[in-house]
Amino acid sequence: MRIDIISVLPELLESPFSHSIMKRAQTKGMLEVHVHQLRQWAVNEYGQVDDYQYGGGAGMVMMCEPLANAIEHLQNERKYDEIIYMTPDGKRFDQQTANRLSLYENLLIICGHYKGIDERIRQHFVTLEISIGDYVLSGGELAAAVVVDAIGRIIPGVLNDETSALTDSFQDNLLAPPVYTRPANFRGWEVPPILLSGDPKKIEQWRYEQAVARTTERRPDLE
Amino acid sequence: MRIDIISVLPELLESPFSHSIMKRAQTKGMLEVHVHQLRQWAVNEYGQVDDYQYGGGAGMVMMCEPLANAIEHLQNERKYDEIIYMTPDGKRFDQQTANRLSLYENLLIICGHYKGIDERIRQHFVTLEISIGDYVLSGGELAAAVVVDAIGRIIPGVLNDETSALTDSFQDNLLAPPVYTRPANFRGWEVPPILLSGDPKKIEQWRYEQAVARTTERRPDLE
Repeated sequence: MRIDIISVLPELLESPFSHSIMKRAQTKGMLEVHVHQLRQWAVNEYGQVDDYQYGGGAGMVMMCEPLANAIEHLQNERKYDEIIYMTPDGKRFDQQTANRLSLYENLLIICGHYKGIDERIRQHFVTLEISIGDYVLSGGELAAAVVVDAIGRIIPGVLNDETSALTDSFQDNLLAPPVYTRPANFRGWEVPPILLSGDPKKIEQWRYEQAVARTTERRPDLE
Repeated sequence: MRIDIISVLPELLESPFSHSIMKRAQTKGMLEVHVHQLRQWAVNEYGQVDDYQYGGGAGMVMMCEPLANAIEHLQNERKYDEIIYMTPDGKRFDQQTANRLSLYENLLIICGHYKGIDERIRQHFVTLEISIGDYVLSGGELAAAVVVDAIGRIIPGVLNDETSALTDSFQDNLLAPPVYTRPANFRGWEVPPILLSGDPKKIEQWRYEQAVARTTERRPDLE
């Protein structure tokens, strides 16, 4: 899978893709991430890519021309399954969307900044608008990093232990049950005895009940 | 405001806090972010901070002892308003939570990894569990970066133009209206004439109607 990202702050994305699971996915050749500086397609020698908004008001808007040229430059090289714009008013990102996107070959992600991008780019180029949650960030870069991470880790073969991702929260509409490790007694706080019982059936049953109870308590909307 | 972050991958967080608005917040002295390598409090010379989970199953669990020692070390230096654990089964992060947290003095954020942290740390140390959305990431680091960014940008004085954050999506339970910038005609796609009218009242009314229409269409749950 290949993911291209268009951004005015590519340097912000340097470290998130250079470590841990994202690094492994790329080293194994399962994921390629390319971040492109939008200013390559700036409208003048000053690197301008944004301008004041029509109608007045605070905050700059990212211009049509650099974005259109950047997108078309990349489209000339390959066909994208989705052209994604990260925006707080987009479709809320969830595990189902992550699962679906992880099956594609080529994704293009546009990071907004300032007040966002010119509406005409959204209308004529973008095929999917994604929000990672109901809050505003200083730019789309961290949101793009979150989407790439959520997708990248579930590409088959990326995680060392395939079963690990299947028991995560949301893969079965249940939150994950509580987990414990050594020591069995820490400052008088003890691990639930059933986990030490050595009885796999009972343990599985207990985990299922815990997952259901936690989901009912915290996220009844998921059930 | 000071934010301490405990992580096994501090290097993943290098670039997100070194650029743009987060850099400005720190340069202005309005925000301090300190990322601590959990392995400083490892249980042995190999830097061990995780272990197999009780009851069996895939995925490692972050141990009590290093986390308890790290938290108490930092608590000896200052009082934290909240000790936050980033986890997909936490309370969903939203703009209201960002607003509330932005008023605090000291926050401590724990990033989970692998299958998560030992439940006893959640029960006895953590005061707030936050999820940035219904999807699973390879670790809590990007989620922590998202929370710090959402909080950091609304600390008064961080954004150059105060009114800019107030017109963002969610600050008034409405999505933001569409924005446009030059040129007025791009490839035949035109800016709505009202934005070129020079009539501030009509423009304000149009933007409000657009915001309401967009919210009704995309996020009727917000109204």
